[in-house]
Amino acid sequence: MPQNKQIHLDNRPVGEAVASNFKLVHGETPPLQAGQVLVRHHFLSLDPYMRGRMNDAKSYAQPQALGQTMGGGTVGEVIESRNAKFAVGDKVVGMGGWQQYSVVDADQPGALRKVDTTHIPLSAYLGAVGMPGVTAWYGLVKIIEPKAGQTMVVSAATGAVGSAFAALSKARGCRTVGIAGGPEKCKYAVDELGFDVCIDYKLHKDANSLSKALKDACPTGVDGYFENVGGMVLDAVLLRMNAFGRIAVCGMIAGYNGAPLPMTYPALILMNRLKVEGFIVSEHMEVWPDALKELGTLVASGKLRARESVAQGLEAAPEAFLGLLKGKNFGKQLVKLI
Amino acid sequence: MPQNKQIHLDNRPVGEAVASNFKLVHGETPPLQAGQVLVRHHFLSLDPYMRGRMNDAKSYAQPQALGQTMGGGTVGEVIESRNAKFAVGDKVVGMGGWQQYSVVDADQPGALRKVDTTHIPLSAYLGAVGMPGVTAWYGLVKIIEPKAGQTMVVSAATGAVGSAFAALSKARGCRTVGIAGGPEKCKYAVDELGFDVCIDYKLHKDANSLSKALKDACPTGVDGYFENVGGMVLDAVLLRMNAFGRIAVCGMIAGYNGAPLPMTYPALILMNRLKVEGFIVSEHMEVWPDALKELGTLVASGKLRARESVAQGLEAAPEAFLGLLKGKNFGKQLVKLI
Repeated sequence: MPQNKQIHLDNRPVGEAVASNFKLVHGETPPLQAGQVLVRHHFLSLDPYMRGRMNDAKSYAQPQALGQTMGGGTVGEVIESRNAKFAVGDKVVGMGGWQQYSVVDADQPGALRKVDTTHIPLSAYLGAVGMPGVTAWYGLVKIIEPKAGQTMVVSAATGAVGSAFAALSKARGCRTVGIAGGPEKCKYAVDELGFDVCIDYKLHKDANSLSKALKDACPTGVDGYFENVGGMVLDAVLLRMNAFGRIAVCGMIAGYNGAPLPMTYPALILMNRLKVEGFIVSEHMEVWPDALKELGTLVASGKLRARESVAQGLEAAPEAFLGLLKGKNFGKQLVKLI
Repeated sequence: MPQNKQIHLDNRPVGEAVASNFKLVHGETPPLQAGQVLVRHHFLSLDPYMRGRMNDAKSYAQPQALGQTMGGGTVGEVIESRNAKFAVGDKVVGMGGWQQYSVVDADQPGALRKVDTTHIPLSAYLGAVGMPGVTAWYGLVKIIEPKAGQTMVVSAATGAVGSAFAALSKARGCRTVGIAGGPEKCKYAVDELGFDVCIDYKLHKDANSLSKALKDACPTGVDGYFENVGGMVLDAVLLRMNAFGRIAVCGMIAGYNGAPLPMTYPALILMNRLKVEGFIVSEHMEVWPDALKELGTLVASGKLRARESVAQGLEAAPEAFLGLLKGKNFGKQLVKLI
């Protein structure tokens, strides 16, 4: 049995999450039972939703249990199998968590999925062709319902979700405007991700200033907004929404690490007859096949080339995760485990 | 030609609206052109949306022009007609404005509608069987989409919209909880309007306190919320919304008269996967026939007995309107003009 390293949630954050909330634990993988497979993880996905689970509060996800391995999406390779549907060498995606190996009851629906790496790199199944990609797809297609010629805006534009959103929005003939932090990310958004314009929110000290920049970037107003951050950015975009605009609320990362951030002008929801809808992609499994098909085609054809930030080794996961919460990552944040 | 009295918007409010924003003007009604009818107004409707129109700001309604008669819904009687479709003596509903008489181009679609007062009092066409009733109907039926056994909450519960909402919600088998200001309104909501419970928001100094009262009143949480007021009440209800709850945003009267009121915890939209949707009933004329049919039946059968606050005489309209903005009315606010 291989030696395994895991990262547990040791204690819950008080305010900002810190490295000492996590604990590295050494162990062994247990022997396989019938139906199980042993997966060696190649990549671990780090995602903002994990911050919410670190709190012991009512939220959409169950709180992460203390003293247990942090949950998280993983891609890897089957290295031992007692399940007829999986063979040694199969590339798989699952929820293996913050550890090097996982033992999976592979007959459980949704527990493990074989993936084809002929045209799509394995790590993309944690990003553009995985949960973040489907998240962008659901928010755009099912909530925002874009029409060609309309203007779409997404915050955290160079992240895994924002990257996929740009490709999906451009494919539908929409003007596509990103909001990101720093000139490097904004240049990348336009040069590589296909955004028509990307606004650097760090150049703006308040929502009114950012809103003026949005007015220039969106001369006919904003019809659809995909919200990843909340706070000042949400306030600024709300000021530019057109009548009957739609806002898909996927994340509010700006408020995850401390005091909740208010929405300054909720009356705009009424004045502009907006629809504001929160969602979690894991509750809409019915769209995954359609979404993954479109996203896989975009990646395989080179139309969606999402950037990755890769931390090396399980020990690097906590710092990489804390950086993600502060926007230090550039593209999909992964941890390479091999 | 009869002498006419009108109330004009003389100047725009700076912050709170005041009586001196209005001006009483005397005049004569002009002679009728072909196709026109002269209507003597029996009742003028006063509604919160009028406050928004007094500002010269981007909003859903065109700003009220200065030096012109304030717009508003009216019911009355045709006293002179040069239109074959309308006869002297017909009871009609229209948008006659803050004046005693109006000359109407009766061939314009939607300008004037004949109503039957056999089983429904004329004034009800400005309330339960008019714009406020249809507003409640649209928010409940089209946005909230209630299911029997779910819990519905409405603020400004004893107003024209809230009264209709209660009857419509109870007819659909929902637990129906009101929020209103003061013990008299709350007692009336339960005794006369059919609310299961009504909470007096004036007993609560902040959103957390009001939210605790809501927890008792809604033991299984809140599935649908019809928002008329905003501010602390919205914050309190948001804390009690169930997963996949729906909020129909019809009004935010608490913020109309001064600084905009924030939404304290917008992250709840995500955590509970809420849909929050603003609407204006005049943009959904397609639902009026169905809605008016149900509302008319509820009124004619005595199941919806909405209370009215009636101010006497056109001169009383400004003070009655300013009182409405502060919740001083009890039920539908009307001005009797005959």
